[in-house]
Amino acid sequence: MTQLAKARKGMITSEMEMVAKKEQVDLQWLRNQVAEGRVVIPANFKHKGLDFCGIGEGLRIKVNANIGTSSDRAVLGEELKKLKVSIEAGADTVMDLSTGGDIGQYRRKILNESTIPVGTVPIYQAVVEAVNEKGGLIHLTVDKIFEVIETQAADGVDFITVHCGLTRAALEMLKNQGRVTDIVSRGGAFLTTWMLHHDKENPLFEHYDRLLSIAKEYDVTLSLGDGLRPGCLADATDRAQIHELMTLGQLTKWAWEKDVQVMIEGPGHVPLNQIKANIILQKQLCHHAPFYVLGPLVTDIAAGYDHVACAIGGAVAGEAGADFLCYVTPAEHLCLPNVEDVREGVIVTRIAAHAADLARGNKQAWERDRRMSMARKNLDWETQMRLVIDPQKAKQLRAENPPGEDDVCTMCGKFCAIKQVKEYFKA
Amino acid sequence: MTQLAKARKGMITSEMEMVAKKEQVDLQWLRNQVAEGRVVIPANFKHKGLDFCGIGEGLRIKVNANIGTSSDRAVLGEELKKLKVSIEAGADTVMDLSTGGDIGQYRRKILNESTIPVGTVPIYQAVVEAVNEKGGLIHLTVDKIFEVIETQAADGVDFITVHCGLTRAALEMLKNQGRVTDIVSRGGAFLTTWMLHHDKENPLFEHYDRLLSIAKEYDVTLSLGDGLRPGCLADATDRAQIHELMTLGQLTKWAWEKDVQVMIEGPGHVPLNQIKANIILQKQLCHHAPFYVLGPLVTDIAAGYDHVACAIGGAVAGEAGADFLCYVTPAEHLCLPNVEDVREGVIVTRIAAHAADLARGNKQAWERDRRMSMARKNLDWETQMRLVIDPQKAKQLRAENPPGEDDVCTMCGKFCAIKQVKEYFKA
Repeated sequence: MTQLAKARKGMITSEMEMVAKKEQVDLQWLRNQVAEGRVVIPANFKHKGLDFCGIGEGLRIKVNANIGTSSDRAVLGEELKKLKVSIEAGADTVMDLSTGGDIGQYRRKILNESTIPVGTVPIYQAVVEAVNEKGGLIHLTVDKIFEVIETQAADGVDFITVHCGLTRAALEMLKNQGRVTDIVSRGGAFLTTWMLHHDKENPLFEHYDRLLSIAKEYDVTLSLGDGLRPGCLADATDRAQIHELMTLGQLTKWAWEKDVQVMIEGPGHVPLNQIKANIILQKQLCHHAPFYVLGPLVTDIAAGYDHVACAIGGAVAGEAGADFLCYVTPAEHLCLPNVEDVREGVIVTRIAAHAADLARGNKQAWERDRRMSMARKNLDWETQMRLVIDPQKAKQLRAENPPGEDDVCTMCGKFCAIKQVKEYFKA
Repeated sequence: MTQLAKARKGMITSEMEMVAKKEQVDLQWLRNQVAEGRVVIPANFKHKGLDFCGIGEGLRIKVNANIGTSSDRAVLGEELKKLKVSIEAGADTVMDLSTGGDIGQYRRKILNESTIPVGTVPIYQAVVEAVNEKGGLIHLTVDKIFEVIETQAADGVDFITVHCGLTRAALEMLKNQGRVTDIVSRGGAFLTTWMLHHDKENPLFEHYDRLLSIAKEYDVTLSLGDGLRPGCLADATDRAQIHELMTLGQLTKWAWEKDVQVMIEGPGHVPLNQIKANIILQKQLCHHAPFYVLGPLVTDIAAGYDHVACAIGGAVAGEAGADFLCYVTPAEHLCLPNVEDVREGVIVTRIAAHAADLARGNKQAWERDRRMSMARKNLDWETQMRLVIDPQKAKQLRAENPPGEDDVCTMCGKFCAIKQVKEYFKA
């Protein structure tokens, strides 16, 4: 039985217990959230040694790091290093998006080493194998897609992105209205190419029941993907995007009927002033299923700093109710990220998630900031360095430019404001 | 006559002409905005070779970079380099916050080399000289404060931060209610120490007329400082802060009566969910004078990445109506920034300002993003590299990890989504 099935029957699982303890929330409340589909706990029965993680309404906002090879760069050791630094930097989940090298082997290695939930996009492997084995993605068969999904589920993948809402009707809408960047989702592009070539419906939509039965068997959480997410600000919140989202809302209910856990993926490139509306729309149309946002990036021109554009959008999305932020690295739109890019991407996205947690009144978040601020007032650098988001970088910066007096910093030196007024404001 | 005086008389100045042209706004509308105090053009009569810049409602959001020495580190050459990279990276103004070395000489050098408006906090020099010459800031005299202000104005400083609203009444409020971090503004701490020691009112408040007559003589724009800005999230939007803001609203009207241009400085450390309220409050209490925000930082724990915490807060503040963002660098709370920190601080804050400009519907901003996105769709890397916020970093990242095929990148390699669906969505 899936977490959802058990929660509905009133059962408390060890997964729920661990999540409730980490989040300091009431166990019965959490069980109810899972039962209502508002919280998912992605935990494939086959993934051993997993540090369980809850995603959804009322919990701390989670951060995902994308790792994985590409056709241009496929070095397993690098991807395992990215996994390690992601976990160290505070990622709650990783997705293995490999499209180069021995994808199956890499995934099993990553699953074996990961203590946090692992997600994938199975259509990638299905397409890469169709291209390598048969010379083109148009040779991909429906059976092949589901074989790959079944294999990945059996390997222990905790959640999978499946672009089930990218229907012919949505594509028709996209074609009629026009767009600046058309389709930028890789999975979305694969499916579109296949659908248009064969003049057929999206197999992940048409055979959704087949998908649900695999997901149910292993308790794989479905992350219903947004293949038509906007790839630039000008395309945001258009008919194609919203049509797909409405379909995902319908598919959410169908999944719940089969006891399958679901979350919804969201945009993309979105202007700051449209983010809140996008979150409200998702929460309403998808019946409060957890919302997993890819960004949103608040400008198209920040390549090299898209992690910052993403942090701005992610924080605002989180405040408005998004539950799960997919990181973006400085390499986005330019190249496959290296290990350092991954580290920076995770930390910066964690800052966004934390800022949103604070805005949402999360008590643990407020307690940490208060303790940090007390340490700052007391010029207690040791405690500050323990509570800061990235002690390694903070210590390094301070060491590179050490102050004349130990208790201050070189910004203000002996004219430190806090030090000056200390005696006047003694408690 | 100041820009404000001329605007009120219906005169069009060359400063207004340059600003209107750069911003692509109607000249009469701009003159009216200046006349109503909603836009300032900081331009000291004595500062020659200035590229005029308008700050306020209806204009592009501006970014300030703080440079300057400290008692622990005072190397003029470094500060001039920071000035250079700030301008190159897109800063609209700089503030020279020097408190170490020959402050007067450094300021004159910076003014001489700066093509963008230069701001200062005169109380810094006044206090540093009192400490160095007389052994303590308590020996600072009221005349000394105004002498320094007069000197700086005569040197050509375009805008000055003056903490005129930090009154005894506001301090009393702070003492009564208590705070986690008391006072974190350097200028605020200097004035508080002096006021409490001498049991006197803030001289910048008490002798506000004397300040106004200097400001009027040189057309120095007053940036009414927030000496009681919150230094941590827990202290945000408290009685002390709001009391000071209310006083600044009153002082704004007095300045306008004397034809002096005014902007208002704002917090500080503010939780994401309180930012909009802070902007609305400032705009109402201060009669729509331009709002210059110092951050806001949306968490206390991001030292090492406070430029990101600032970008999140700055973007949200900008969307809500803030007109001018003071950058924060990765060195904030740790040490005096180096040249690279300054560069990164400016670029990241520019991203925040741009994201807010987009949210506010700025046409120039939308046009740039649209052109970037068209280039992305066309796999036109040359145009992308011209339109990106920091071509240097984008080119470097791409070069470090070059793709197998020139038209894509190593993220997706030959599985590039855009390339795949291109033929299906030909215009």
